[in-house]
Amino acid sequence: MATAATGDLNAYFKDRIGQIERTLDELVPEGNRFCGVLFESMRYSLFAGGKRLRPVLALATVEALGGDVEAALPVASTLEMIHTYSLVHDDLPAMDDDDFRRGKPTNHKVFGEAVAVLAGDALLTQAFQVLGTLDATGREAVMLRIVGELALASGSLGMVAGQTADMLNEGKQADAETLAFIHTNKTGALLTASVRIGALFAEATEEQLLALTTYAERIGLAFQIVDDILDVVGSAEKLGKAVGADAAHAKLTYPALHGLQESREAVRRLTGEAHQALQSIGLSGGRLTQIADWLVNREV
Amino acid sequence: MATAATGDLNAYFKDRIGQIERTLDELVPEGNRFCGVLFESMRYSLFAGGKRLRPVLALATVEALGGDVEAALPVASTLEMIHTYSLVHDDLPAMDDDDFRRGKPTNHKVFGEAVAVLAGDALLTQAFQVLGTLDATGREAVMLRIVGELALASGSLGMVAGQTADMLNEGKQADAETLAFIHTNKTGALLTASVRIGALFAEATEEQLLALTTYAERIGLAFQIVDDILDVVGSAEKLGKAVGADAAHAKLTYPALHGLQESREAVRRLTGEAHQALQSIGLSGGRLTQIADWLVNREV
Repeated sequence: MATAATGDLNAYFKDRIGQIERTLDELVPEGNRFCGVLFESMRYSLFAGGKRLRPVLALATVEALGGDVEAALPVASTLEMIHTYSLVHDDLPAMDDDDFRRGKPTNHKVFGEAVAVLAGDALLTQAFQVLGTLDATGREAVMLRIVGELALASGSLGMVAGQTADMLNEGKQADAETLAFIHTNKTGALLTASVRIGALFAEATEEQLLALTTYAERIGLAFQIVDDILDVVGSAEKLGKAVGADAAHAKLTYPALHGLQESREAVRRLTGEAHQALQSIGLSGGRLTQIADWLVNREV
Repeated sequence: MATAATGDLNAYFKDRIGQIERTLDELVPEGNRFCGVLFESMRYSLFAGGKRLRPVLALATVEALGGDVEAALPVASTLEMIHTYSLVHDDLPAMDDDDFRRGKPTNHKVFGEAVAVLAGDALLTQAFQVLGTLDATGREAVMLRIVGELALASGSLGMVAGQTADMLNEGKQADAETLAFIHTNKTGALLTASVRIGALFAEATEEQLLALTTYAERIGLAFQIVDDILDVVGSAEKLGKAVGADAAHAKLTYPALHGLQESREAVRRLTGEAHQALQSIGLSGGRLTQIADWLVNREV
């Protein structure tokens, strides 16, 4: 049963990933002769693979609420643009200085630092361009709220704040409050926004929106603790990067602070709370539950 | 008369700059203990002075059309956030590698490259955060269109495209089509968007919007040709940067390509067309005319 459900989820991801990549391909074209390399660079990182977790979460939420999944594709794709820009900038020499991502040379290794900075800027901007230029007749208030959600989650009150705090604390003594701030903002904010944007697009009730926010916050945190655990116990193949990379950079991690056992316990507790949140609005047992279970069962 | 009008315009700019800086101060607060330096860095560049030309153009347009200038302040301020982010990223070592701007050390010289990248990202994102979270009840369609305008002007079809083309052509043989692309996109697109966003905010008619777009495109191009001329004939004090800096970097400039006399002629022609555009919708002789004349009469 568990295996059947997972197989099912794999097929689901495959379909959704196909839709998302076709949408990204349409939204980010090849460019022009004056600055073709900018578009090449944007597309290089956009099409570097990955599970497309954020747009898939958004689409699964739209689907769970009976919304129009096809119409939601461009909106969901903006989450991948934001995620991709953040990876391109995070990999820069001045930041994490990573040469490889998902087994491929990072953007600046291929296109140079200047183009990588500009491609990141362009991907970030394009997310809002898509939201601002979609035909949203009669639904402008919904789209405008989505603009606000995406920006809040991505900027100085969200992802960029988390990335800054992470960088400032590299090599420093662990501190639970700081780690919580980093987890909540660096990765959590955009994951939560993915679910919330799906909910807003499908015109969820306030009760549904609140419960789905709890779901998203819990799986977002669990996802990162699992990542931290995998870094400690995982293998190079499974993550596609050097094992112990976080420890080598003396990154603040959940297991470093709370120990492995307590970390696994936290994942179980958070997953339970995510399930309960879905149950409270009658959405148990569907894709969102499956995704939660998949996220935390990656080889922990 | 000319002097009186200029004095008058100085006072106008002073008032508007005051309003804009108070608005920016409210919109970009001091930050929190986890990433205070991010906000410091954003504010350092936001409050580094300057004429605030883009928000002033937006507000002057709102005023010319009888719109609510006070209500337009946050919207106008987003143009300065975008402009500031572009300066912070353009100054980075991987880009123009500038140590000083307006006589002050550039952002990365004070805060380091990583924070400068992040502060730029945060300023860019915050522009859309402001647009997406303003109370726009009943005017969501207008605000959403402004989101689209701002993103189109700033991203891979606007400013970032121009910046990329500029960088790619550094040190290369001049080419009129490439220079036009750079001028239109690198600086022109955001200047044009400033006027258009003011017009959209004030709910201009399509006829007004078209004429104001022509006005903005012409003064945007004239402004850059004047900048190029000043770089050739100006003095260090007037520009606040080393004379001949563009020539030293072998930047493509209008005078290098077309000569000084033809450059001055182009400025006159473009200014005339800007005046005509205003005249066609009965907006001659006001602030927008004054701003056009001021822009092109800076010591050419």
